[in-house]
Amino acid sequence: MCGIVGYIGNRKAIPVLLSGLSKLEYRGYDSAGVAINENGKLRVEKCKGRLTSLEERLKTENLDGGMGIGHTRWATHGEPNDINSHPHISQSGEIAVVHNGIIENYIQLKEFLVERGYNFKSDTDTEVVAHLVEHYYKGDLLDAVMKVIDEIEGSYALGVLSKDNEDMFVCARKDSPLVIGLGDGENFIASDIPAILEYTRNIYILEDKEVAVMTKDSVKVFNSLGAPVKKEVFKVNWDVEAAEKGGYEHFMMKEMYEEPKVIRDTFSPRIINGELKLDNINITKEEIDNLQKIYIVACGTAYHAGVVGKYIIEKLCKIPVEVDVASEFRYRDPLITDKDLTIIISQSGETLDTLFALREAKNKGSRILSIVNVVGSSIARSSDDVLYTWAGPEIAVASTKAYNTQLTALYLVALDFALKKGTISKEEADNILASLKEIPAGIEEILKDKENIQKFAHRHYNAKSIFFIGRSLDYALSMEGSLKLKEISYIHSEAYAGGELKHGTIALIEKGTLVVCPMTQDSLFDKMVSNIREVKARGAVVLAITQQRHKEELEKTADLVLTIPDVDSLIAPISAVTPLQLFAYYMALEKGCDVDKPRNLAKSVTVE
Amino acid sequence: MCGIVGYIGNRKAIPVLLSGLSKLEYRGYDSAGVAINENGKLRVEKCKGRLTSLEERLKTENLDGGMGIGHTRWATHGEPNDINSHPHISQSGEIAVVHNGIIENYIQLKEFLVERGYNFKSDTDTEVVAHLVEHYYKGDLLDAVMKVIDEIEGSYALGVLSKDNEDMFVCARKDSPLVIGLGDGENFIASDIPAILEYTRNIYILEDKEVAVMTKDSVKVFNSLGAPVKKEVFKVNWDVEAAEKGGYEHFMMKEMYEEPKVIRDTFSPRIINGELKLDNINITKEEIDNLQKIYIVACGTAYHAGVVGKYIIEKLCKIPVEVDVASEFRYRDPLITDKDLTIIISQSGETLDTLFALREAKNKGSRILSIVNVVGSSIARSSDDVLYTWAGPEIAVASTKAYNTQLTALYLVALDFALKKGTISKEEADNILASLKEIPAGIEEILKDKENIQKFAHRHYNAKSIFFIGRSLDYALSMEGSLKLKEISYIHSEAYAGGELKHGTIALIEKGTLVVCPMTQDSLFDKMVSNIREVKARGAVVLAITQQRHKEELEKTADLVLTIPDVDSLIAPISAVTPLQLFAYYMALEKGCDVDKPRNLAKSVTVE
Repeated sequence: MCGIVGYIGNRKAIPVLLSGLSKLEYRGYDSAGVAINENGKLRVEKCKGRLTSLEERLKTENLDGGMGIGHTRWATHGEPNDINSHPHISQSGEIAVVHNGIIENYIQLKEFLVERGYNFKSDTDTEVVAHLVEHYYKGDLLDAVMKVIDEIEGSYALGVLSKDNEDMFVCARKDSPLVIGLGDGENFIASDIPAILEYTRNIYILEDKEVAVMTKDSVKVFNSLGAPVKKEVFKVNWDVEAAEKGGYEHFMMKEMYEEPKVIRDTFSPRIINGELKLDNINITKEEIDNLQKIYIVACGTAYHAGVVGKYIIEKLCKIPVEVDVASEFRYRDPLITDKDLTIIISQSGETLDTLFALREAKNKGSRILSIVNVVGSSIARSSDDVLYTWAGPEIAVASTKAYNTQLTALYLVALDFALKKGTISKEEADNILASLKEIPAGIEEILKDKENIQKFAHRHYNAKSIFFIGRSLDYALSMEGSLKLKEISYIHSEAYAGGELKHGTIALIEKGTLVVCPMTQDSLFDKMVSNIREVKARGAVVLAITQQRHKEELEKTADLVLTIPDVDSLIAPISAVTPLQLFAYYMALEKGCDVDKPRNLAKSVTVE
Repeated sequence: MCGIVGYIGNRKAIPVLLSGLSKLEYRGYDSAGVAINENGKLRVEKCKGRLTSLEERLKTENLDGGMGIGHTRWATHGEPNDINSHPHISQSGEIAVVHNGIIENYIQLKEFLVERGYNFKSDTDTEVVAHLVEHYYKGDLLDAVMKVIDEIEGSYALGVLSKDNEDMFVCARKDSPLVIGLGDGENFIASDIPAILEYTRNIYILEDKEVAVMTKDSVKVFNSLGAPVKKEVFKVNWDVEAAEKGGYEHFMMKEMYEEPKVIRDTFSPRIINGELKLDNINITKEEIDNLQKIYIVACGTAYHAGVVGKYIIEKLCKIPVEVDVASEFRYRDPLITDKDLTIIISQSGETLDTLFALREAKNKGSRILSIVNVVGSSIARSSDDVLYTWAGPEIAVASTKAYNTQLTALYLVALDFALKKGTISKEEADNILASLKEIPAGIEEILKDKENIQKFAHRHYNAKSIFFIGRSLDYALSMEGSLKLKEISYIHSEAYAGGELKHGTIALIEKGTLVVCPMTQDSLFDKMVSNIREVKARGAVVLAITQQRHKEELEKTADLVLTIPDVDSLIAPISAVTPLQLFAYYMALEKGCDVDKPRNLAKSVTVE
C-alpha cells in the first residue's frame, strides 16, 4: 500500500506534491519521491526513508515545473531503498510512473520487455508499467496507458507523466483508491481526500478501470473501452483540522480521548425518541427471519470487533454467526448462499483483502452489510447496506476509536435484528441501550486513571513476551489488547482463551512473565480466577481489568487491578478495550517507539 | 498395542512377571493381569487400571508357581474393565492366553466357536484364541497353537499356558514384537527387551509366524510348517532405559518414527476391498443429508486437527462446520440443536473441558461422533459413534503421532460422509484414498531428512520469537507447528494467516526474525510467495516447507526449503506436520529442554 498524488496548474508543483504526500504518510513511509515535467524535461527525485528526507534533498534543487506526480511507499516488492522508490522511469527516461497496488503478472511482463531490450533497475513490480507505457507510446499518452491497463493484472492506482506532454498527465485505477480534485485552473489526483483538501473540496471518485486525462483546465474520464464517462462532483463537507493532533503528543492519544464523543456520535443519531432506527439499513423483519447464517469478515482490529459481534448476535438474535479473516475467507470457497448475510467491517473501507472477500460473498448471492468509517470508500460503495462508524479520520496507524465505534455499530445491528426477530423484548433492548449510553462517561473515567497504567508500564516495558487471557467476550478483548501491544511496542504478545493456555502455551509462563486478564464477564469471573491461579503458580505477574464491583475481591489474586465503571457485562467490551489501548500506548512510549507510525505498518492495507 | 511377558524356571513367577510388566507400561496401562500354573492348577488374576492395582491385589494372594504369563493392556476391542483384561481363559478354564495385536477375522472365528457351544465372556478379539486353542487341543499344546495360527488373521504376539502342561508353555508371533530371553535353568518371553534385561542379555528375536516351546532348560523354535528353526543368540549391550524408548533418545522421536505405521493402522482396517467402511460409525445417508451443521470441539493439538477437519469436511461434504475450543464452547451457550452433529477429538478421551463440551452438545440434542485414541475412555463411552485412532500409547507430552492419526480419521469421516451424501464421486474418493496410502512412505522419506532440520535448528535455537504463517490448510498446520515449538522449546512462537500478518503483527518482524512457512497448497503458492517477500523485505529469515515439485522455485525466495514427497494438496497436512514436529524437537534439544516432559504441562488435561 502506498500513497500517490499528482498536480497540474499554475503553482509550482513540488510544494503541492509534498504537502499532499505529508497527508498520505499514514499509507506508507518506506520511501518518497516526485517527478515533474520542467520545460519538456523529466526530473525525478526520490529516496528511502520518511518524507522529510526527500524534502531535505529537494531544498538544494531548483524545480520549477507546474506539473508533477509524487509517491510515498509501503514496500511490497523489493526492500525499501532508493532504487525501489517511486516514481519509476522508463528505459529512455521519458516516462515516469507512480503506482499503488500490486501488478500480479509482472514476471511475465518483465520477460516480454527484457526480450525487447528493456533493462530493469529495480526489484519492483511497478517498473514494468513504466517500460510498458514507453513500449506502447506512439505520441498519444492516453492511448498508451489504455493499452497498458489492458495488459496488467492485479491492483493499481497510477499516475503517468511523459517528457513529450508538458500540459497533461494521465491517471487510472483498479482496486486501489484514487480521487481527482477539481480546482480553478488547476487539478489534482490523490489516493485519499485529505491530501488535496487544502486546495479543493470538489472531488471525482474514480471507479475501477477508469482512466483520466488531466490538464490545467479540464479532467476527462474514460471507461476501459475508451468511451467518455460523465462523473458527478462529490462535495467534501468535513474539515482538515480534524486530522491534526490538537495538543496531544500523539494522534493515538488524541484518538483515545475522542472515544467518548465518537461512540456517542455512532449511537445517538440512531436512537430517535427511544426507538432504534438504523439509517441506510433496509433489511426487513422477513429477511431477518429467513436468514440462515451471518458471516462477519474483516482483518486485524476490525476482525477482533467481529469476534465480539459473533458473541452478541448469536446471544441476542439466535442466528449462527461465523467470523472469518478476510484473506482466508476469500480462498476457502466458503459455503455462503443467498440465505446468508455478510457483515463486512473496515475502518478505511479500502482494505483490499476485505474488499475481495466482499466480492466473493456477493458473487455467491449474499447480501452485504458493511460497517465502515470512510464515506464513499470502495467497500461502502459495494455494499447493499452501510452503517457508518462516525469515528472521523483515524491517523494513528494503531486503531483505537475506530474499534470502539465498530463495536457500537455491531451492538446496534444485533439489537435491531433481535427486536425485528422478536428474540428479545423491547424492555431488554431498552436496558441494553441504557447501558450503551453509560459507556462514553465510563471511558472518560478510565482515561482519568491513565497514570496508574503508565506507572505499571514503566515497570514492565522490558518484557519480552506477554500473554493475554480471557474467556468469551474477554477472549475477543484479549485478541485486540494483544494486537495493540504488538503493533506499537513490538513486544511479542499473544491472546489465549483462558481455558486453553494449559494445553501447551502455559509452558512459556515463568517467573515474572506478565499475563494480562480482562475479566468483565460476571458469569465467568470464578473460572478466570482459577486460570489466574494457574499462571500465578508458575510465577506470572498478573494485570487484571475488571468491573469496579469486583475490584476488592480480585486484588487478593492479581498484582494490579484496573477497573472500568460498572456496566452490564454484555456491553462491557466497548469501554474495557480502552485500558488495554492505554497499556499498549504507554508500553510503546516507555520503549521509545514511534507510537503513531510503527515500523513495517501502514494505516490502510490495500495490498493482499 | 499391549505388552506381554512369560516366565518358566525355579523362581516364583509372579515377581518376575510384575517386574517385567512394569517395564512395559509404556505399551499400555488400561489393565494388567497374570496367569500361572501352580501344581497343575491355572490361577488367573487381573484387573482394570495401572499395574499397581494388580500388585495390590496380589499381595493378599499366595501364588507360588514357577511358570506364568502376564499382560499389560492398551484397549482396542472392548472397553478397559476387569472382564476384558488379559489373560483370557478358555471355556473349560484349562487354557490361558495373553495377546498383543489384533485378530482381524475374530468375528468369523467367534461365530464358528459359538456354533460349537463356546460362550464368550468378554468383548475382546483375544478370547477367540483361548477357545480355539481348547478346540484344537488334543494333548499337544504346540500342535494346537500351530493349528490356531493357521486360522487367525491379523497381528499377534501370543503366550499360551495350559493346565495339563506344568513344565512348558508356548508362544508365537506375527507383526507384533516378541523376544525370548535365555537364562540358566529359566527362560523368558516379552514384547520388548527391557522387560527381561534384569535377568538375561541373551536373546532370541522371534520372526513372523515362528512358534516356540518354552521349558526351564530349553527353547525350541519352529516355523509355520512345524520345522525346527536354528536361532542365533543376540547379545544385548545397551541398558534398560534406552530400550524402552526403542533406542531413541526420547519418546517424542520414537513416536514420530511410529507415524507411518500408526497412520496405516488407522486407515487400512477401514478400507476393505477398496471400499471405505468405518467401524462403529452408524450414521446413515439420510442422517447425513439432514445435517444442518457440524461442530468440531477439542483442545490444543486436537483442536488444530479440528481446524483441518473444517476445511476438508466443508470442501468434500458441503456441510458447514464450526470448530471450537472446548473451554469456550461450553460457556457460550452455542446454538447447537438435534439437527447438528458434534465431532469430539481427544487423544486421551479424558480431557475435561472436551468431555464437558460433549455433554453440553448432547444435552442440546446433538449426536456425538468422537475421534479418540484410548478405547473405553470417558469420551468414547459418552459418544454415539466412535472412530478410534490406532496410534497406540503416546508417552511424550507433546503429541505427534496422535495428531497424524486424528487427521487421518477426519479424512476418513469426510470421505465417508461425502460419498454417502453424493458430493464427491467414487472416483474422486478413490483418488484421495490412493493419496492417503502414499502418506506413510512419504513420512519415512521426511524422517530421513532430519539432519537438515537439525542443522537449521542449531543455527536458530536462540530465537526469542518465531512466526508461522500459512494460508488455508497451511494455516491450520502453522497453528500446530507453532504449538509444538512452544510447548517443548519455550520459544514464543505464533501462527498467523498469511494474509493477516500485515494487519499488525508484521511490526515484530526485524532483521533475523525467523518465519516458518508451510506451503503445501498449490493454489495458494503464489500468494504465499508474496507474503514471504513482505517479511523478507523486513529482514526475516524464512524456513519453508513445501512439496518436492516447488522446491527449486521456492529456493529463489526462502532461506531453507524442506520438502515433503509430492502428494495431493488436500491430503498434504498429514505428512507436512512431521517436519514441523522435527523442527520443534531439534530446537528444544539444542536448547537443552526436557523434550518428553516440558515444564508446567501434563499429558492428559483433566482439569478445567
